[in-house]
Amino acid sequence: KAQNESDERALLEVQNGISISKDSLFKLNLRFRMQNRFGLRTESGEDLSIEQTDFRVRRMRLRLDGYVLNPRIQYYIQLGFSKSDMDLDGGSFAQPIRDAIIYYYFNPNFYVGFGQSKLPGNRERVVSSGNLQFVDRSIANGVFTLDRDFGFFAYYTLPTKGKAQYQLKGAVSTGEGRNPSPGDNGLSYTGRIEFLPFGKFKNGGDYSEGDLEFEPKPKLSLALTLNSNQNAVRARGQLGSDLYAKRDQKVLIADAMFKYRGWGVLAEYFQRKSPDPITRNSAGATRVVWIGKGHNIQLSKMISSKSELALRYAEVRPEDEIKPYESQGDEVALGFSRYLNGHRIKLQGNLGYGWANNEWNLVNTSNFWFGTFQVEFGI
Amino acid sequence: KAQNESDERALLEVQNGISISKDSLFKLNLRFRMQNRFGLRTESGEDLSIEQTDFRVRRMRLRLDGYVLNPRIQYYIQLGFSKSDMDLDGGSFAQPIRDAIIYYYFNPNFYVGFGQSKLPGNRERVVSSGNLQFVDRSIANGVFTLDRDFGFFAYYTLPTKGKAQYQLKGAVSTGEGRNPSPGDNGLSYTGRIEFLPFGKFKNGGDYSEGDLEFEPKPKLSLALTLNSNQNAVRARGQLGSDLYAKRDQKVLIADAMFKYRGWGVLAEYFQRKSPDPITRNSAGATRVVWIGKGHNIQLSKMISSKSELALRYAEVRPEDEIKPYESQGDEVALGFSRYLNGHRIKLQGNLGYGWANNEWNLVNTSNFWFGTFQVEFGI
Amino acid sequence: KAQNESDERALLEVQNGISISKDSLFKLNLRFRMQNRFGLRTESGEDLSIEQTDFRVRRMRLRLDGYVLNPRIQYYIQLGFSKSDMDLDGGSFAQPIRDAIIYYYFNPNFYVGFGQSKLPGNRERVVSSGNLQFVDRSIANGVFTLDRDFGFFAYYTLPTKGKAQYQLKGAVSTGEGRNPSPGDNGLSYTGRIEFLPFGKFKNGGDYSEGDLEFEPKPKLSLALTLNSNQNAVRARGQLGSDLYAKRDQKVLIADAMFKYRGWGVLAEYFQRKSPDPITRNSAGATRVVWIGKGHNIQLSKMISSKSELALRYAEVRPEDEIKPYESQGDEVALGFSRYLNGHRIKLQGNLGYGWANNEWNLVNTSNFWFGTFQVEFGI
Repeated sequence: KAQNESDERALLEVQNGISISKDSLFKLNLRFRMQNRFGLRTESGEDLSIEQTDFRVRRMRLRLDGYVLNPRIQYYIQLGFSKSDMDLDGGSFAQPIRDAIIYYYFNPNFYVGFGQSKLPGNRERVVSSGNLQFVDRSIANGVFTLDRDFGFFAYYTLPTKGKAQYQLKGAVSTGEGRNPSPGDNGLSYTGRIEFLPFGKFKNGGDYSEGDLEFEPKPKLSLALTLNSNQNAVRARGQLGSDLYAKRDQKVLIADAMFKYRGWGVLAEYFQRKSPDPITRNSAGATRVVWIGKGHNIQLSKMISSKSELALRYAEVRPEDEIKPYESQGDEVALGFSRYLNGHRIKLQGNLGYGWANNEWNLVNTSNFWFGTFQVEFGI
Repeated sequence: KAQNESDERALLEVQNGISISKDSLFKLNLRFRMQNRFGLRTESGEDLSIEQTDFRVRRMRLRLDGYVLNPRIQYYIQLGFSKSDMDLDGGSFAQPIRDAIIYYYFNPNFYVGFGQSKLPGNRERVVSSGNLQFVDRSIANGVFTLDRDFGFFAYYTLPTKGKAQYQLKGAVSTGEGRNPSPGDNGLSYTGRIEFLPFGKFKNGGDYSEGDLEFEPKPKLSLALTLNSNQNAVRARGQLGSDLYAKRDQKVLIADAMFKYRGWGVLAEYFQRKSPDPITRNSAGATRVVWIGKGHNIQLSKMISSKSELALRYAEVRPEDEIKPYESQGDEVALGFSRYLNGHRIKLQGNLGYGWANNEWNLVNTSNFWFGTFQVEFGI
Repeated sequence: KAQNESDERALLEVQNGISISKDSLFKLNLRFRMQNRFGLRTESGEDLSIEQTDFRVRRMRLRLDGYVLNPRIQYYIQLGFSKSDMDLDGGSFAQPIRDAIIYYYFNPNFYVGFGQSKLPGNRERVVSSGNLQFVDRSIANGVFTLDRDFGFFAYYTLPTKGKAQYQLKGAVSTGEGRNPSPGDNGLSYTGRIEFLPFGKFKNGGDYSEGDLEFEPKPKLSLALTLNSNQNAVRARGQLGSDLYAKRDQKVLIADAMFKYRGWGVLAEYFQRKSPDPITRNSAGATRVVWIGKGHNIQLSKMISSKSELALRYAEVRPEDEIKPYESQGDEVALGFSRYLNGHRIKLQGNLGYGWANNEWNLVNTSNFWFGTFQVEFGI
């Protein structure tokens, strides 16, 4: 069985894909992955006519993993080619590079990285988009995630005598997100601690959604992330439109993963703070730092060896200061996944309801039902 | 000898290229293809000074084909990286994904697909750009083709007792072309029937231009496509600039391929209709649906085992209603191809003359001669 | 030991990477390379606060080399995916294709190419970005290089009786740089002669910076390039912003490489001329052809079998006519390189000082110190 892919290290053991190796001098794994989807969104909670169809290649990735010279010197490169992957939905220039990082392992418990990759932020983000149990991450991730950044990374697993594990993760990075241009902005500092009181999950399951491994004993991971992004230029730190002035931003994230006999719980809590979050240009237009709180909780159960049901409830709640500019949002969703080859080949169906400003009644015109069918296919 | 590549299914048998397989569990073929060209166009039919040079990498493609888990579950991915491939000649954002589709085979005669690929439209389009006998498709294809789209596809070959074959192809798709954004537009419905009275062509020759196989007995394919694109937002359905308002569009295509002892005939007839084809914005500017008729006919003869001469005559004729906005166009071209390794490595020279509005005399300034030399190189 | 990669021919022998071959019928080498960097630039020579950080994936390349049908028919394709690679730092559209060229070898001493690749211009440019001893090329290269172009290329090594070698290189190309659109501009003609009085360098060392081979006997290459770019549309020939009118441009380059027992010297002299270099649009705005002179000289010494120190001094000096628009620039830099696996895996540190208009005193606000750390990682 193939190892679950992680976005925090190179994937050295693959089941399929091109894998070329030469003694302990060289290894290259070449893999791809795509997600094709058909989605619908209604006009409102009451009016079920179709407001929007979402019918496209959502993700299309090529991934290279391996080592050169010595198994301690590893690399992980991921390119993305869909419109969304390249940030061309809203952004202005094509960004095919998602991950491009070199790792050096001092020992199996301590390694450092230099390059572009995911910051050690919220769990839902660090879980590869190939290991999700819903077709998209939650609205809370959309507003608060630390996403990817370019910089120096370090990962350390504390040696302990018992089963319990402590993992420390940290990064010093640009704070401006993927593929930044040279600039004169401050850096971003991220620290994360994870505590696994009952020991390691099977097959990297603390970073894969759904208990496909049917953990025979309860497994838990509790984590806390703190991020301080100095002189940030974007509305949501590493993401979002450009602010009219630089602002310091701080993000706190607490999250947990629990798995036991096919049951899974993923919970996340978020908070972003920034002094003076409102920026204005000379014409009086306004752009604000998205400050506030949010959470996402997902409960799932494998209903057969290859099928799963999952439920999500997520919310984002802006601080009063920016309420004229940003809305509260809530979503609930029901997800069914059929895992034909683990997360690598799966069929997914999601149904959900989203509402704004705490007004969840069906007649509200900014509310909507949504349904999405997605096929994930990869090696 | 390598199988001719098709753009309507995965290519499982390759002669060169990287091909990795594991029992019947997994197969991955990795191939590339490029077309480098040098072309010239004169100022007019009479003035032979150079108006335009066309000197560039016209196409640069990477292609992945294979299956995973089971030979019934196939995939076909094609990425393109030239300026034209990514629609950056006229378009505004980079689109490297050309094909990204997953197929499921119920049996050898019936398979369905989900993803982005070519619609079952005119033959000249569905023939891979790697299997053309001229360096570019005709002007009629440019105006009327259904091109690629994202959606559901189905392909069925009717079992018959004799040699004759019937093939049915259908698709339900977005109607907005490659890599659409989520939107609220109607869908596009395409149906196609093909009739091969004398049986299958050698080596997929009904979708490869030129009779490189020297069919010992006459082979013919006759086909009819109907497409209805609801609430289309672009001037030519899946292609073209954005209209100022949505319009329903219907396209009828009839085409045929005939091959016998090195001779080949490819013929296509097109018609597009749309009620109220003229759209205006508030400033009074106009954009129109390209309604009208067109045809393309190509006659070719292998003059040695590896060399071919081909002749083309194509025309596009707008309806009276849009004549203030679109012109009639005609082109004739003579093509020579030297097939060094079938269509995979070939040298091509084209010479032709193009004229507008039925005024083919040489003094007309919008007429022109053109000549192009192209090398195709791929594995 | 792997052959040094050249950007003027296909790389057929690789140490690592995916290499697939079949008799003498087919070969495909697949390789990648990335450069991750962290750089700083001060406000001025005196004020050492940070004006700019340069913290990003500078280069990310995929490379395909090989032959098909016959070892005489070779190809070389290089794609680049970083923001800089795709010219998205300043340019307006994504350009992943760097090289896409087909070579035909008449004999080992004479081959021709058709496609997009580096013009036979200054040595520093033709040296692959994977074989540099500083993290970036010099400011002189930035202003005067011929860069890449699309066209016909020819390479000829004169047979001689002694050790001395003469190499002739020529190209006829569009003159508009990478991935041009069809246009009506004149062509560019490039000729280059190289003289190696003491014979060939080890392992292609005349096109690789630093004497990693520790040449036991002195080796020298002297070269002269002439380029005439007719009706050029860009301020620096194949590069730069668009001029308001076309201008003929001529570039002369003289360069040399010397290596002996770990010492290396690379020297380049540049000159660009253009009649009437100033272009204006109707609103009176001005864009000028960068005419003037420049040079770059690099001196290096291997201080151990894997470590090197290098010193650079480069200058660009505009002609009086364009001095209102372009400044004189100078830079000195000290470079340390640690070659873990030749040029394929290396750590580099650069420290330098740059000044404008011959005013090198530290208080000048347009002067600056810079420091850069870079990891190159490739196979």
